[in-house]
Amino acid sequence: MNVLIIHAHPEPHSFTSALKDQTVKVMASLGHAVQVSDLYAMRFKAVGDQDDVRQRANQDYFKLQAEQNIAYAQGRLAEDILEQQARLTWCNLLILNFPLWWSSMPAIMKGWVDRVFTTGFAYGSGRRYETGGLHGRQAMLCFTTGGSQESFSSAGEHGDINIILHPIQHGILRFVGFEVLPPFIAWSPASQPPEIRSACLEELSIRLKQIV
Amino acid sequence: MNVLIIHAHPEPHSFTSALKDQTVKVMASLGHAVQVSDLYAMRFKAVGDQDDVRQRANQDYFKLQAEQNIAYAQGRLAEDILEQQARLTWCNLLILNFPLWWSSMPAIMKGWVDRVFTTGFAYGSGRRYETGGLHGRQAMLCFTTGGSQESFSSAGEHGDINIILHPIQHGILRFVGFEVLPPFIAWSPASQPPEIRSACLEELSIRLKQIV
Repeated sequence: MNVLIIHAHPEPHSFTSALKDQTVKVMASLGHAVQVSDLYAMRFKAVGDQDDVRQRANQDYFKLQAEQNIAYAQGRLAEDILEQQARLTWCNLLILNFPLWWSSMPAIMKGWVDRVFTTGFAYGSGRRYETGGLHGRQAMLCFTTGGSQESFSSAGEHGDINIILHPIQHGILRFVGFEVLPPFIAWSPASQPPEIRSACLEELSIRLKQIV
Repeated sequence: MNVLIIHAHPEPHSFTSALKDQTVKVMASLGHAVQVSDLYAMRFKAVGDQDDVRQRANQDYFKLQAEQNIAYAQGRLAEDILEQQARLTWCNLLILNFPLWWSSMPAIMKGWVDRVFTTGFAYGSGRRYETGGLHGRQAMLCFTTGGSQESFSSAGEHGDINIILHPIQHGILRFVGFEVLPPFIAWSPASQPPEIRSACLEELSIRLKQIV
């Protein structure tokens, strides 16, 4: 299996980064090929704009999705986008690894989606959901939270985590064709003692080994 | 009333930008003071990282929220963050004006939230939701969609728009204390004829005039 991890955390020694490192280790030990796009380390460009295409099709009016579509068809997308698209095409399993900031992914990862999941490549001409450009692949979120598991329940102050994840799991991942696996959630690791954090990494190993 | 509009669209002639222009015009005509942070025009830095603080408190381990908290208390946040925080403090009504990309806000606007809603300023030490740092203020989303209204219903392919907006309206805006007004949604303006787009701008006027 080919595993692509998109990782977004500014601190290499964070627990979010430890989850990424654990995933790399476990997947490699199972004989899978693994590639990591470490967005902070790469200083990945976060903002979708006219620099995403090497030559604008419409000089008078900039519509990102329209420019992406034409640039994809004509091979004029920026190099960093093409590189990420090649990785997506290569993978069988995509893992988005991040800290939950403001009930969503960090801006640098949202920018990766805005820029890389272009029309033509990931969807378009009626291709979406079951027929999305990345169908036949699996995807999984792996993330840390600040709040407790209880606070992310339907009775908790933030609301049901499944509702919070809907825009990502459905609006992004399913939209482009991924089969979405249940997320792996590390609840509030910053407030846990080392043994709980170790146990969490062990749980992640077990989860990863169940993916086929 | 003091109105702050955060606007995120790369094209000044887009319908999303027309909504922003209409809001400026209507609010000014009602005698309100209006400020606009046009994130694309400002080339607003989208990624929360160590450059957000003028001097790191912890050289060995970078945790954005912890650094934000100390930097806020000690006046060491980056200038562009302080400027946005001053505008937030000034406003009575915040309007987030954007195109719905991937069931969420564009990365540049998510970065504005990640960077500007710092611990200490917007929440922290138990202050959140009703006691959030921006309580006493109202907020409203104003956005355009690619899909139809029907596609964003509970039976539609993208799911209920209220669920899609939960992470923004609850996880961001209510979390920091805002009273959230019903969103103004321009459904799929790119596929509408000019008269429907004009009517939509007129509807926006009516909505804005109802806010007190």
